[in-house]
Amino acid sequence: MIIRDLTITPIAFRDPALLNADGLHESLALRTIVQMHVDGGVVGLGEGSGGSATAERLEAVKRSVVGLSVFDLNGIERAVSDALGGDAGPLTRRQRREVFAILDVAAHDAQGHLTGLPVAELLGGRVRDAVDYSAYLFYKLAGHPVANDIDDVEADEWGAALDPEGIVAQARTLIDRYGFRSIKLKAGVFPPAEEIAAIRALADAFPGYPLRIDPNGAWTHETAVSVGRELQDVLEYFEDPVLGIDGMAAIHCEVERPLATNMCVVAFEHLKEAFEKDAIQILLTDHHYWGGLRHTRELAAICGHWGVGVSMHSNSHLGISLAAMTHVAAATPELTYACDTHYPWNRQDDVIVPGALEIVGGAVAVPTKPGLGVELDPDALERQHRVLLASGRTARDDRGYMKRLDPSFQAGLPRF
Amino acid sequence: MIIRDLTITPIAFRDPALLNADGLHESLALRTIVQMHVDGGVVGLGEGSGGSATAERLEAVKRSVVGLSVFDLNGIERAVSDALGGDAGPLTRRQRREVFAILDVAAHDAQGHLTGLPVAELLGGRVRDAVDYSAYLFYKLAGHPVANDIDDVEADEWGAALDPEGIVAQARTLIDRYGFRSIKLKAGVFPPAEEIAAIRALADAFPGYPLRIDPNGAWTHETAVSVGRELQDVLEYFEDPVLGIDGMAAIHCEVERPLATNMCVVAFEHLKEAFEKDAIQILLTDHHYWGGLRHTRELAAICGHWGVGVSMHSNSHLGISLAAMTHVAAATPELTYACDTHYPWNRQDDVIVPGALEIVGGAVAVPTKPGLGVELDPDALERQHRVLLASGRTARDDRGYMKRLDPSFQAGLPRF
Repeated sequence: MIIRDLTITPIAFRDPALLNADGLHESLALRTIVQMHVDGGVVGLGEGSGGSATAERLEAVKRSVVGLSVFDLNGIERAVSDALGGDAGPLTRRQRREVFAILDVAAHDAQGHLTGLPVAELLGGRVRDAVDYSAYLFYKLAGHPVANDIDDVEADEWGAALDPEGIVAQARTLIDRYGFRSIKLKAGVFPPAEEIAAIRALADAFPGYPLRIDPNGAWTHETAVSVGRELQDVLEYFEDPVLGIDGMAAIHCEVERPLATNMCVVAFEHLKEAFEKDAIQILLTDHHYWGGLRHTRELAAICGHWGVGVSMHSNSHLGISLAAMTHVAAATPELTYACDTHYPWNRQDDVIVPGALEIVGGAVAVPTKPGLGVELDPDALERQHRVLLASGRTARDDRGYMKRLDPSFQAGLPRF
Repeated sequence: MIIRDLTITPIAFRDPALLNADGLHESLALRTIVQMHVDGGVVGLGEGSGGSATAERLEAVKRSVVGLSVFDLNGIERAVSDALGGDAGPLTRRQRREVFAILDVAAHDAQGHLTGLPVAELLGGRVRDAVDYSAYLFYKLAGHPVANDIDDVEADEWGAALDPEGIVAQARTLIDRYGFRSIKLKAGVFPPAEEIAAIRALADAFPGYPLRIDPNGAWTHETAVSVGRELQDVLEYFEDPVLGIDGMAAIHCEVERPLATNMCVVAFEHLKEAFEKDAIQILLTDHHYWGGLRHTRELAAICGHWGVGVSMHSNSHLGISLAAMTHVAAATPELTYACDTHYPWNRQDDVIVPGALEIVGGAVAVPTKPGLGVELDPDALERQHRVLLASGRTARDDRGYMKRLDPSFQAGLPRF
C-alpha cells in the first residue's frame, strides 16, 4: 500500500469561446492528470488545475510523497505542505491544499482499488445514488476567432449566445441532451439589464426550473442590490454578485435571496469571518480548492452545523474530476443543491474510457466500481499532452486573450 | 460487507469510591458492549454508556441497521436516528448520536478487519505513534462503604485521597505505574481552598508537569475567578469551573488561563454560540458524545479552523473505548493535549484480551493490527454481564449513592 511513483501529465483540451467577467476562455483549457502508482500495480487517478505551476509543484512534492502509505492522507498532506515550504514558504495554504487535493483524489482512487470499495463508500457511504448537476450557461461567441479577429470566428457546434434568445437556445440544447433540471447563468459579461432579460427569458422558457446567476463579483453594490431585487422572484440563489466578505454581507442586508460564493470564501481560514458577518447563506464547495475529498466533507459538515447551505463549484474539467465530484457529493448529506459542472463543454477531449459517467436526467449515477470507477485512456492522455506541448501554453489567461481580441476590453472588477 | 446482527451486552465492572461534585461513584460502573456481526465471520466491537436506556435504544435500532453495509456510516447514522424517532422523537440529537457512536466504533473495527487496516488508517492516517494520556486524580474514599456507613469502608488497593497529601500520593502511584506526564484533578468536592492546596502540592511534588483542575461546574462565578487567578501560574487549563456558555464566557473575561469544557459544549449545535462568545479555548472531544470517530475528527477540524484547542474527555470505560480513543486521537492533528482516561481505575475488569493496550511513559501505543487492534474475551464479557445482572443496576446514580451514605449531602450546582 506504499506509493511508489507519481506520473504527472499536464494536458490541454478544447474549450469553447465562453465569456465571463474576466474575459474569454481560450481555445484550450489546461489540466493536470496524476497517476499514483502503488504496490501491486494499483494506479490511482487524480485531476486538478493545469499549467506549468501545478506540474512544477507536483514534481516538487513527488519525492516526499513516494514511500508513504496511500491510506496516510494526513501524512501525504503534511509531506506536500512541508515540501512546498510550509507556512514559511512562497505558497499560501490554499495553494498548497490545491496540490494536495490532486493527490488526495488519486489516493482515494487507489484506496478504492485496494479495498474493492467505491470512493463514496470510503467517504462514509453514499446518501444518494445519483448526483444532480445544473445546466451551466455561458455567454458565448459562435466560435474562437481566427487570427485574433473577434468578428471572424471558426464556428463550433454550439453557436453563439450573446442575447436572451441565444441563452435560451443554449439552455434548450443542454437540457435536451442531458436533462438538467436547474440552470445557472455565468454573468458579469453584458450590462445588467441584458442579463436580467436573459434570466427572465429563461424563467419564461423553463417555468419552475431553479435559476442562478453568477457575475463573479462584476457588480457594484448598487448594481447587485438592484439586480437581486429585480430577480428575487425567480432566483434560487444569487452567486458572488460582489467581491469580498464585507461586500457580500452588505448585499445580504438588502436582498432577500440567499447569497452563494466560491470567491470570497475559498479556504477554511475564511469561514469564521464569513459566518460571523452572515455574508453567505450557501457555500459552493470545490474539492480542488479545499484540500480534497475528505476535507470537502468536513467543510460541508461545518456548513451544516452553522446552518449554511452547500452547493458545488466547477472549473473547466474532465472525467476524473467529474467522478471525484460525484463521489464526494454522493457522500455529503449536507449538499442539497444541484452541482455545477463544465463537463458538457469539455467532455469531447476526455482522457478516460467513455461510458462510466453520463449525465442523464440532469444527474450522474454514482459509479459503483472500486475507486473512482473510471479508467484512464492512455492514448487519449498522450494525445491531450501533445496538444498542450504543441500549444506552448503554460497558464490560463482569459483576460489577455480578450484584450488581444478587443483592445478596448476593460479588465478589473467591478465592471458594472 | 453487510451487517447481519448486533449482539448487545450490558455489563458492570468494579469502580473505586471516586468523589465528584455530583456525589460518589458507585461500586459498579455500567457500560454496553456491542458485537457487530458482518459477512464472513467478521465481528466489530463497540463500547459505550451503560444502563438499561442504552441497551434498549440499541435493541430498538438493531432491525434498521441489520442489512446495511458496514461501510455505509451515513446510512447507519440515518437509520439509527430514524429508528429512534428523529427530530420528532423523544430523544435529543445528542442522545441519538450517542447510540450511533457505539455502532460507528463497531463499524470502524469491522472495516479494519475487512480491509486489513488499523482504524487510525481508516481515519486518515496516524499523525503520532502513541497517544498521551494524563493522570486522572480523584478525591477518593479508602474504599466503598459497607452497609451504607460512610465511615466503615472495605479498603481497596488505592487508599484514601481526601487531602493534598492523599492526592499527591495518588498521583505518585499513577505516575509510577504508568509514567503519566500531565495531571488532572477532578475537583468540586471540597471547599476551594482545599483544592487549591492540592494543586499547589501537586505543583511542588511534580514540578513542570502540566496541571488541570475540573470541578464540573461546581463553582460560582466569584469562586471560579478567585481559583483561576490563584492558580494561573500552574494551570495548563481550567476545565468547566462554572456551568453554561455564558458563564464560561464571563470567566474568560477575568481569568488568564484557557478554559476547557466537556459540559457546556457537547453537541455540534453548541459550537456556533460558544465560539462567537469566546466561551472556551479548548474543547474536550469525546467520540461517545459526538457521534463516533469520523464526527470527532470533523469536530477537531472545526476547532482547528476556529483556533480552539483540542483535548479529550473520558468517562469510566474499558479497553474497547480506550482503543477507539487512541485511534481517533492518533488520526487527529489538531489534538495537542494529553487525553483523559479512567482506564487505570477500571481496567482490572476489562473484557478484552490483555496485552493490546498498555499505558507506558504516559502514552498508549497506537495498535497496528487491523481494526481497533483489540480482541474480545468472551468469558470476561459473560462474567461482567453476570455482575450487572446480579447487581440489579439500571442506571448511574452518583448523587443517590452519596445521599444514601450522607443524607446531609447537598446536591446541585454550583456547590461552592
